[in-house]
This record gives sequence, structure tokens and C-alpha cells, in this order.
Amino acid sequence: MEPKNHDLRLSAELLERMNAYWRAANYLSVGQIYLLDNALLKEPLKLEHVKPRLLGHWGTTPGLNFIYVHLNRLIKAHDLNMMMVCGPGHGGPAILANSWLEGTYSDYYPSISQDKDGMKALFKQFSFPGGVPSHVAPETPGSLHEGGELGYALTHAYGAVFDNPDLIACCVVGDGEAETGPMATAWHSNKFLNPKRDGVVLPILHLNGYKIANPTILARIDEDELIQLFAGYGYRAYLVEGHDPEIVHTRMASVLDQCLDEIAAIQQQARTGELPISRPIWPMVILRTPKGWTGPSSVDGKKTEGFWRSHQVPLANLAENPEHLEGLERWLKSYRPDELFDEQGRPLPELLDLAPSGQRRIGDNPHANGGLLLRDLRLPDYRCYAVDVPAPGAVVAEATRVMGRLLRDVLRNNQEQGNFRIFGPDETASNRWDDVFDATSRVWMEKILPEDTNLSQDGRVMEILSEHTCQGWLEGYLLTGRHGFFSCYEAFIHIVDSMFNQHAKWLKTCNRIPWRRPVASLNYLLTSHVWRQDHNGFSHQDPGFIDHVVNKKAEVIRVYLPPDANTLLVVTDHVLRSRNYVNVIVAGKQPAAQWLNMDAAIKHCEAGIGVWEWASNDCGCEPDVVMACAGDVPTLEVLAAVDILRQKVPSLKIRVVNVVNLMRLQPPSEHPNGLSDKDFDEIFTKDKPIVFAYHGYPWLIHRLCYRRTNHANLHVRGYKEEGTTSTPFDMVVMNDMDRFHLAADVIDRVPRLAQQAVYLKQYIRDKLIDHKHYIYKYGEDMPEIRNWQWPLPVVAAEEAGDGGREG
Amino acid sequence: MEPKNHDLRLSAELLERMNAYWRAANYLSVGQIYLLDNALLKEPLKLEHVKPRLLGHWGTTPGLNFIYVHLNRLIKAHDLNMMMVCGPGHGGPAILANSWLEGTYSDYYPSISQDKDGMKALFKQFSFPGGVPSHVAPETPGSLHEGGELGYALTHAYGAVFDNPDLIACCVVGDGEAETGPMATAWHSNKFLNPKRDGVVLPILHLNGYKIANPTILARIDEDELIQLFAGYGYRAYLVEGHDPEIVHTRMASVLDQCLDEIAAIQQQARTGELPISRPIWPMVILRTPKGWTGPSSVDGKKTEGFWRSHQVPLANLAENPEHLEGLERWLKSYRPDELFDEQGRPLPELLDLAPSGQRRIGDNPHANGGLLLRDLRLPDYRCYAVDVPAPGAVVAEATRVMGRLLRDVLRNNQEQGNFRIFGPDETASNRWDDVFDATSRVWMEKILPEDTNLSQDGRVMEILSEHTCQGWLEGYLLTGRHGFFSCYEAFIHIVDSMFNQHAKWLKTCNRIPWRRPVASLNYLLTSHVWRQDHNGFSHQDPGFIDHVVNKKAEVIRVYLPPDANTLLVVTDHVLRSRNYVNVIVAGKQPAAQWLNMDAAIKHCEAGIGVWEWASNDCGCEPDVVMACAGDVPTLEVLAAVDILRQKVPSLKIRVVNVVNLMRLQPPSEHPNGLSDKDFDEIFTKDKPIVFAYHGYPWLIHRLCYRRTNHANLHVRGYKEEGTTSTPFDMVVMNDMDRFHLAADVIDRVPRLAQQAVYLKQYIRDKLIDHKHYIYKYGEDMPEIRNWQWPLPVVAAEEAGDGGREG
Repeated sequence: MEPKNHDLRLSAELLERMNAYWRAANYLSVGQIYLLDNALLKEPLKLEHVKPRLLGHWGTTPGLNFIYVHLNRLIKAHDLNMMMVCGPGHGGPAILANSWLEGTYSDYYPSISQDKDGMKALFKQFSFPGGVPSHVAPETPGSLHEGGELGYALTHAYGAVFDNPDLIACCVVGDGEAETGPMATAWHSNKFLNPKRDGVVLPILHLNGYKIANPTILARIDEDELIQLFAGYGYRAYLVEGHDPEIVHTRMASVLDQCLDEIAAIQQQARTGELPISRPIWPMVILRTPKGWTGPSSVDGKKTEGFWRSHQVPLANLAENPEHLEGLERWLKSYRPDELFDEQGRPLPELLDLAPSGQRRIGDNPHANGGLLLRDLRLPDYRCYAVDVPAPGAVVAEATRVMGRLLRDVLRNNQEQGNFRIFGPDETASNRWDDVFDATSRVWMEKILPEDTNLSQDGRVMEILSEHTCQGWLEGYLLTGRHGFFSCYEAFIHIVDSMFNQHAKWLKTCNRIPWRRPVASLNYLLTSHVWRQDHNGFSHQDPGFIDHVVNKKAEVIRVYLPPDANTLLVVTDHVLRSRNYVNVIVAGKQPAAQWLNMDAAIKHCEAGIGVWEWASNDCGCEPDVVMACAGDVPTLEVLAAVDILRQKVPSLKIRVVNVVNLMRLQPPSEHPNGLSDKDFDEIFTKDKPIVFAYHGYPWLIHRLCYRRTNHANLHVRGYKEEGTTSTPFDMVVMNDMDRFHLAADVIDRVPRLAQQAVYLKQYIRDKLIDHKHYIYKYGEDMPEIRNWQWPLPVVAAEEAGDGGREG
Repeated sequence: MEPKNHDLRLSAELLERMNAYWRAANYLSVGQIYLLDNALLKEPLKLEHVKPRLLGHWGTTPGLNFIYVHLNRLIKAHDLNMMMVCGPGHGGPAILANSWLEGTYSDYYPSISQDKDGMKALFKQFSFPGGVPSHVAPETPGSLHEGGELGYALTHAYGAVFDNPDLIACCVVGDGEAETGPMATAWHSNKFLNPKRDGVVLPILHLNGYKIANPTILARIDEDELIQLFAGYGYRAYLVEGHDPEIVHTRMASVLDQCLDEIAAIQQQARTGELPISRPIWPMVILRTPKGWTGPSSVDGKKTEGFWRSHQVPLANLAENPEHLEGLERWLKSYRPDELFDEQGRPLPELLDLAPSGQRRIGDNPHANGGLLLRDLRLPDYRCYAVDVPAPGAVVAEATRVMGRLLRDVLRNNQEQGNFRIFGPDETASNRWDDVFDATSRVWMEKILPEDTNLSQDGRVMEILSEHTCQGWLEGYLLTGRHGFFSCYEAFIHIVDSMFNQHAKWLKTCNRIPWRRPVASLNYLLTSHVWRQDHNGFSHQDPGFIDHVVNKKAEVIRVYLPPDANTLLVVTDHVLRSRNYVNVIVAGKQPAAQWLNMDAAIKHCEAGIGVWEWASNDCGCEPDVVMACAGDVPTLEVLAAVDILRQKVPSLKIRVVNVVNLMRLQPPSEHPNGLSDKDFDEIFTKDKPIVFAYHGYPWLIHRLCYRRTNHANLHVRGYKEEGTTSTPFDMVVMNDMDRFHLAADVIDRVPRLAQQAVYLKQYIRDKLIDHKHYIYKYGEDMPEIRNWQWPLPVVAAEEAGDGGREG
């Protein structure tokens, strides 16, 4: 486990310069946290040179600076294509400092020039109003993630290197972050990395020992446990530790050389050898250095360097504590800025010379601005996968299975480009995308047994029972300029609520940064949804992810509820072409009636919302009632309710409205897809009752529509947290969203039905009692429910499904 | 690492009987999945005996049955207080079968008697309309969690044994579940378990090799990696593996004896020894048996036993496949039911004799129905911690720090009872609960260094940088009848959205199960909230957890937004006394103006919403405008806006309304705390403009109020996803929720201000420009913002803070 002796590669002179570079980065980091002026300390430090509010995180920063200068050496020495994924993203000052030192920052932001004016501006802008965030963020060159929420660095790094055989993602993992669940399982990503096809992640676990106010677990367990833990994860861990920079520099350089050698050997063997590959033991580094290294060793008599007191701003309240101001000046001067920067504030040439150049600079690596590398997918014509729907309701299909066929060919067409993958927590088959396995398989680097199906080392379907890992991989893959789809049980997508938040925030901010190029959208298929949890029940019933999503900026989120297979095809094609969105598609996987032929589906999806004339009988006049639906099961129940009502009250004028693009319901002031008030009023009328069956929690529809003219007459049914294992129809009954309740809702709201109401309501009550009796006795829905079909059209088949049918 | 030889304890006769017990449990499990009738197979199996819809998960079930019978032996042999936390909760049939065999099920549900009628009813009810869920659930005796969502079993088990020194929680972890993030970090819970004070978790990692349609990672990695991984986590893992039941029984019994011996030795040493304790290496079991063990080895020529095809229902579509029906009969008969049950369907006495009795039965362990063991907290008088508020706005305090003092004494008062703990991801100090460290410390079983502060082996504050682990521990602790509080950064509580879902669903269902006794509420303090992320910025800004929470059943959720320290004290006391709720409290930690003295705070919190007469000048008449607020920062901004308006337009009649209990806004039909329409109208008027400043996403207020009379005049400001690192006041400006925008909103909405509007709006625009100039130049808010204070009262101090002030 000991590295070979590579120390000779690192001359004393180079080490000295690297240490100076590190001092420069540390100086620039402290400067960012503290200084408004006097950036080069050319005059004695006074209070007016210091920011009034001291914000930022020093603790992790010197360690990041240390890593950065070592990566620079590697990149230059080997001409590496290397990016850095910074887990301790709180250490924003480090990444900004290095980005400025290597010149990237001034390239991206010319007003932050590489001289004393630029240095002053660099210092001032940090965590300052109108400036830049204190964490790594979209504004930070070379970063591909928000450094605020912890836990996702390693999955992002793996996502970045899949299908990028030449890329090395050095991923710094903080020991705080290492305690999170998502990180604890992310180490297993190596089971899915093919050294032949993919690049490599070089993890550096940075043990600085402390979180905000606590020691960390991994820094305190015995070393043998630590090494065993990572051996168990499948890594060969090299320890680098110490406090004396000289010793740590030497050891770090030697270990990194060793790691690179091992990586090169593994890749070469995998890419040239004849032998079948087995999953390699990849190297990693465990770097143990003091928190707040090189900062004040103690403040007010309390241990600070090497302790959690270094976490944010070690010396605070300078106005009240003149000795803190002196301490700050001593601290800054300890880096000997005069030996680092010339009179103009430019880093000395021998330092500048240490940084790589052009796109080899970490801050300028194009993979961290993936839109630069994005290539469109080669998409097949989605219309070729259409389900033949001779008339609405005439055929049955499984929507997600049809979608799977389209995705199969997306995989095939882009096999060579190698820029499309599918992600999911072991649900690709369960969610009925099985056809994708005709084009590819699941990637799997462990042993493959003869009985295994659809497993291979070069598969493009990525399955691990961790929604966090799926989401993180996909984010990393997209952010480096590729495409993908995540299919998930609807209820459990809440597991990644917080990851979605960060990604949506990232996209929103990117839209405001000109040099960030658009990336492919993050596409979710949520299926195995709330209404069909036959095997699972209450714990698997939650349609609230949509509610969560619509809290984020309208410009980056889209929600689609295609009612059948052909609309799902149209939506799928659309989202695969879109950029910089999060697209949420909810669709069922069960056999279900199909409503629209392909032409009608295209028209309907383009409108996003529309009157289904073939299901309506208002003949273009003002109806007695509008029955609206969004989602596949609600659509079925609304149509069945229409059937009941038209049989019982043929004179009732019903307009059926279906919503595919949920954002159409909002006013255009709230969402770019919003329907104008005029169009909304035309569809929903200004004063007629609206009975709306919605896939999710009903109040969301009110929240989207409360500004609309006719909101007072809007009555919404949806999931109200009632459920267990039962029959499909019983699920809708429990939530009052079944055809009978919907019919009753109409009867209650149309004044001219008052006379018939008693009779009609009795009929409905009887039906519901029959239903309960039947399911308790037989365990399945009544034949009249199971076999219900929308009446076949009386018009010619070629017109049907396209608006031709009259009621 | 090899166990001592305990095999002699297990006679061949006992092993034979245990195997028969296991066969019985397997028979009962298959029966539940398949049979409607002919439960004892007394006649040839026909299609009409089989359920029409076959639902459930067979794959994990035989393994769970195997473990259960072995635990029964241990419990009987050693009179153990043992519960079982079932990670693979999909294996509901196993737990139900065992609960019926040991008699618990019939005790809880007399109609499911321990005879052939009961057996038939047991079979029918499973996954059947009106019956029981297919997963372990509140209906399942002996379970303390929802078995649907995976990942939390181990944290629940640890939560259960904290402060229960005699309890052993055997936790079965599936190899699918083991891939989740929350589980991957949960293994580190051993760093927080004190063998002197706490019980112990005995993990059984059950490697059956497959998930839904995939192999699992831990089942396929090399055995040495597997053992190293768990050694790295701090466990000594004992492998038990095989297919031949006799061999596996023998080995399992011997390993379990070994584990118990080790546990006993560790506990004895910790509890009697003089030496300081170091964190022990606890034993665990890795059980490697085939998925769907004892089921059909192949179906339609495809490998089934020992493969993922066993996951749900191995033999399906019996109507279309007569050979599947025959296969089912052979399978059921392979367990030789005639040798297991008598003519009456009762398990034979020699089997019954294997189960423990009374509360030693796993299904009847009272810790799994924690309400049985719940003792009220000894609560101090919260009024003693009141901040002295001589007049509204006259003093400044940090609300959460004041709350921390109350919690310090809750900890002190209940030290002896040992039934209260505090949980958080390393934020107790950051969230300003520091005073709790006068009463206790953080629990920490690793090395403690001289410089460490507030760490000890018997602390009652539990901190790990994993919100998942905090939430899981707390849930386990509450569900076993204790009390606790979780403090978390507001934005990152979304990390546990999905865990909250499951807990809320659990509570909702428990309310419908008479034998489930109420447990203490799950209490969240969300602080470091959206408006004050000075160190962090956009990534830390998300107030949407409230939106997520209010989607769950009204009967189990409560949301509080106390505007200051004294109201926070009242609310804290209230939630600590409550039962079976999830209480969400949002409160700031920064120094902030205080509004209410303790008497006023009590009155205000009891009402949950109210007019602040001291801030209003409508003198009991109809106002020109209602200015409402919910949350501490919105309250500040509303009062400052009132100040501006009253200075500029003294004749304007303003009513100020503050909301503490957010659920008061809903109609009583939607939430038990809902305000009647009459009361709502009285407070908010029927037709006057309402300008509402709300802590979170503004549309939530519309969703809660859209049924109210005056909804059309409701205008809400709140967080709209605009933010970065900036000044506190700039954060509200970016989201249009600052005093100036609020004042402008009033001006726009009060018709009689039309004449002055141009002048007033210009004043406001100028102020906002001044603000931007100032912060960009100086980096902090203008003195007039920083130093703004609610005008001191002109009335006597003793009346103020209690409704006395006139405008």
C-alpha cells in the first residue's frame, strides 16, 4: 500500500514555489473575507480597511488551496484534462483565489483584473452586496455545483466522468459532508464506472477534523477502521497528514503521483488488454490537515487553528477588539505578500508559471460549463411509436411502455455519441421501460452470473437503490453537457426534494450569467404513481413533488400530465429537446384506455390544455358545467362521469377540458407558459361550475387558478391522503375522485338539475355501496368498472380521436 | 473472528422444531399472498380458492421468517427484552405470519383467531380491500415503522434503544435498503451509543442478493471487501450463509449465541467496570440466503428461487396457466401443513411452545407501541424564561437563545427520567441553543481531546451531519415513548421531506387504530431561516417545508411562526405537551426586536392569530387597510411599514394582524385549528385591502385563504426565490417584502390615497435607491434601517406590550 518513490519528481525549488503559490492563495482568501481596501497591505491595517460585516468560511479554505496547487502541478506535468469538484463548497474564497491566480477569473470577469485594482475588487465583492456568494456557485468558474448543501460532490464527480474517458474529476470530500447519507453511499459509485469507457474520479477525503462546532466521525475513528472502511468501499486509500507544510507538500505530491500512476495503469490495461475487465481498486487520498491551517493558532486564549473555532471567521468584532485587528494584520503578513505580488499587485511570474494555461486551467475546464460541450441528441421521429387509436377509448396501452420504445431508439441513435443515459433506483423494468434493454443494458462492474439479465459493463442504464445517487449522477452528467432521464416511483422522488432545490437554484442563477451555456434539462418520469400502488399502499402514495417543484422559479420548471401514450410521446420528445429546465412528467404504467391519435395528441400537447370536443356535448355553446381533468386516472374518471351524466341527463351540456401542461393554468404573469385570462375564460367560462379532477393534492389547482375570473366556481377533487392497499377504483373512491363522486359534484352545482338531484344522488349512493360490497367480497373491482369503456364513436374511424365525435 | 462453539446449546430436536416453525411461517406467508379459501389445503387447490389479484412480496419473506424463529429462541432462552425492526418492510406476510403464530395477532385482532377460521381470515385480509397493507405498518403488531420507504430501519432501531439499557433491537437490513444513503451512514450510529446507558442494536444484514430486477451491490462484492466495510463502520461481522436449512439453522443459532455473549460482555464491562469506556466493537450478522428461499426454484423454465424473479409473486396468472396453479399447490404442500397445524388449524403445541409469551413476544413488545410507556415530561414553568418587554420594540433578544434556556431546564428536569434528547446536524450552537450545554453535552463515544467542549459519553444532545440520521433517531426515540426536539437550518429540512411523509402517514393511521397509544409529537425548530443567511446565501434559502407539511392530514400537522421570544416560549411549551402531531416551529436566531410581554404572548398564542391593537390605529372601527404578518422578519417589516405610513399619512386607519398558528387561516372544515368564517371576517374585514407579509412562499397564504370572504382583496408578499449573500434588509428588498414595498402596496390599494400616491411612491423609490447605494458602498444596511425601532409608547410602561398603545 506504500507508494513508489516519486519524490524525485518534485525538486526543492518547485516545492518552494508551490508553497509560495499556496501562501498567495491563502493571502487572497483571507483578504476576501476581511478586506475592503489596502489589499496589498502597503499601509498599516486600519479598521476602515476591513469590511463591516465579516462573512465566509475560513476553516476549509487553506486545505482547498493546498489541493489546488498540487492539482495544478499534476495538470501541467501530465497535460491532464482535470476538473475539481469541491465538496466543501463553503470554501468559496479558495476557489475564487485560485481562479484569480491562474487568470481564469479575469478572463471571465475583466473588471476583476489580475492586478491591485482587481485584487481589491476581488476582495470587496466576496460576500458583499452586489458581489458574489461565499460558496462555490454558478458565478464561480470551474464549478459545476452549488456548494451550499452538502453530500453530493462525489455523485456529481462520477456523473461528470461517465462517457468522458479522458477526464479526471478530482473530488474533494469534506469530513463533515462525509457524514451525510448521500455521500456515504456515493462511494459505491465505483461499481458503475467502466475504466474503458469512462474517465475517473480521484477522491480526496479532507479530514480537517471538525464541523461547525463538533469533531467529525471519520477524523476521530482509529486509522485502521478508516482504511478498512474505504477498502470496503473498494478504494486503496493513501494517507497524507501533517501540519508542517514542507512535509505535507512532499508527501502529497508523492501520493498524487502514485495515484496517477495507478489510474494510468488501470486505464491502459482496460483499454488495451485482451482480458475481461474486473472492477479495479481505484486509488484515493485521505488528507489530514488542521482546520484553518496557517490561521491564528489561538484567539482570546482559545485554540483556533486545528479546531472548530476556525470554521467561519476566526478573528471577529475587530472594532471592539483592537488586538484582533493586529492579529489580522499579523496573519495576513505571515503569508509575506511582498514576496508574492509585484508592485502592481500581479502575482510574480514564477508563481504564474505554476498554473496550467487555457482550458487546462481548473477554472476554465469546459466540462464545468457543460453547455459548451453539449451536442443535440439524435432523436428518432416520435410519431413512429404512436399507438393506433381508431377512436377515443377504443384501445388499451401502457403509456410508459410505449415511451420505453422511444427511449430505446434514443439510446440506439446516440450510442456512438455516448451522451445519453437512463437513471433509476432499480425501477426501469418495473416502470415498464423494458424495451430499452433491446438497445443497451444496465451497467455493472461486479461479477455477472450466467442467470443475470440485461447486465453488462457497457450498459447505459444506471440503477442503484439510492434516489440520491441517481439524481446526483444525472446532475453531474447533465452539467457536463450530456442528456438523461430519471424514472422514479412518484412518492419516493421526495427523497431528492432538496437536491432538486439546489439544481433548480443553479439553473435559475445560470440564466443570469452570460458565460454559462444552457445544458440539457433534468427530466423526470414519475410513474408507479399515487393511484396505482396495488402492491404497496399508503406509504407509496404521495403526489406532492409537483407542489414542491412549482415553488421554484417559473422560468426553470415545467410539469406535464399526459393523459395517455401518444401525449406522453409528444411530451417526451419535447423535454428531450429542451434546455435549462427541470421537466416533471407524471404518467401511469398500467394498461389504460387511450384517447388521442397522434395528430390529436400533437395538437393537444402544443396547446397544453384544451377542450375535448369528442367528449363534450356543448357544441361550442356555453355549457352547463365544465369537467376538467389533469392526469391519466383523473381523465378516466372524468370521462366515466361524463358517460354517467349523459346517460342519465342527456340534455346536460358538458364541456370536457384536459390539461397536459399544468403551468398553463397560471396567469402569464406568473409563468411563461401561462394562459391569458381571455383564453382561460373562454375555456373555463366566466361563471359556470367547474368540476376538476386532478392527479395530485387538490389545493394546488386553487393555488394556480386563484387569480382567474371563474375561480369561485372551481371545485377540485384529488388525492387527500386517504389510501391503503386496495383496488384501483377503490383508491379513487377513498379520495372522492371517482366517477360517481364527480357526477354528484356536478349534480350539486348545476341548478337546473335540482329536481332530479334526489334520484340521481340515490343512484350514485347505491353504486358506491355496490362497489364496496363487491370489493370486500371478491377483492377486485366490479366488472362494470373494470370493463367500462368510453362509448365507441358513431362517426367514421378516421375522424375519431381528432375532435370528430358528437355526443 | 470465529465464534466460540455454542452448537451444543442447540439440540437436534430443537433445531427440527425450529425448522417446522419456520415452515409454518412460510406456509402462512404464501397463504396470505395467494389464498382466499381452502387455507389448510384440505381439498385439492382450485382457482376459486385463489385471490383474483395477487399482491405482495415473497422474496424477502422466508428470510424474515427464518430470523424471527431464531430470535424467538434467543428471547426464550435468555428472557430477553427484544424488538425487531424490519428494514425489508415489504415482507409484511412474514411479520403477520409470525405474529399470528406467537398469538399476538389474535390478541390484538380477536376475529383473526388462532384456528382455521382465523387462518382463512388472516389470508384473505392481506393486501385485500378492507384488509391490511402488504408492508409492515401501524396495523402490524410489533412494528414501529412504515415498511414502505427504505433506508431508515437502522436509525429507528438506534433511536429505540437510546436510554433503554435492557432493550435489544434486532434490526434486519435488506441488501436493497443497504444501498440507500440514509442507511449507508446510519451504521455510524454506533459512535453515539453508550453501552452503559443505552441498549443495543443487533443488525442483521440480510443479503438475499437481489432488488426488484437487479443484483445488489453488497451481495456481489468480494467477501473481504464486505467484511472490511463493516469493520470500517466499527462492527465485527459474522457471516451465516447457505441454502440447506439445517446447515444455516445451526450456524445462525451459533452466531447469534456468540453475538449475545459479546453484547453481554460489553455491557457488563461498561456497567460494572471501573475503567473509562471506549466505544466497543459491536457484533452484527450477515445472513446470506437465497431470495425467495424455499419457493419455486424455477417458473416457466426461468430461475426463480435465489433470483430477483422471486421479488413479488413468483407464480402469477394462475387462471391462464394451470401449471402455475399446480405449482402453487406443490409449493404450499412442500411445507407439509399437516405436520404443522391440527385439524382445527391451530399450530401444534410443540410449535406454540417455541414462541415467547406475553410481552416477551416480539409482536407484543411494548416498546413498539411506545405510547404505552410514555411518561409526561417534567416541564419547568416557561413563563420564568420570559424576556422583559416593557414596551413593544423596546428590547432586543435572540429568540432561539431564550428557547434554549427553557430546553436546558427541560433537560435538567428529565435527566433522571432519561426520556428527552435534542437532535440536530451540528447546529445546536449555531442555532443558539448553547445554554443546553449547561445541563448536558453532546454524546460522543470516540476519543475526547482536552480541547473539546461539551462532548461526553452521557450527553443528551445528538449531533451528526446527517439530517436523515437525526430524523431517524428522533422518530425511533419518540415511537418508543420518549420526547425530543430537532433543530435544523430551515432550507435543509427538505432533506428529510420523505421521512416526514412516512412519519405523518404513520401518525394518521395510528389515530385510527385503538390499541396504538399516542406518542409525543415530532417537534421541529427551523431556524437559520430564509431571511437571515448572511454567511451562506441562495443555496440556504428555502422556506418550503411548510408547504410540504400542510399537504399531510390536517389532524396530525401544526405550523407555528412565533414573532418573538416570548411567543416562542409559549409555543415550545405547548408542543412539548402535545401528542401525535408533527409540530413545525419557524423562528429566527438573530438579535431582533421583541413585541409582546409574557401575558400578551400567552393571550396571542392561545388565539393563534390576533389584532395587535398597540400597533393599529383603527380604534376598533373598520380600518382602511389590514396589514397582516406571519413570521419574525415579516412582522418587523410590517411594523416598519406601519410606521412609515402613519408618519406620512396620519389619517390612514391601519389594522395590524399577526398570525402565530398558521393553521388558523384555514376554514375549520379543512383544519381543526381553523378560524370560523365569522371570526376571520371580523379580523380581516369583508372588503378592505389586506397586505400580508408572510415568511415563506406567498402563494401558500392564498391556498389557505382562498375560501374566505375577502380573499379577492388579499395581497401577499413573501419569498419568491430571489436571494444571494447580501444584507438582511436587502434580502427582503429583493423579494419585495420590505417596509417600503409594503407601504407602496398599501398606497396602491387604498383608494383615498390616490391623490398622495405620486408623492408617496417617489419617497419610497428614493429610499430604495438610497438603500442600494448604501449597501453597495458600505456593505451593510443604512443606519436608519439598522437602528429603526418601533416608536416608544406614550402610555405607561406597564400597560404597553399588552394592547395599551394608541397611534
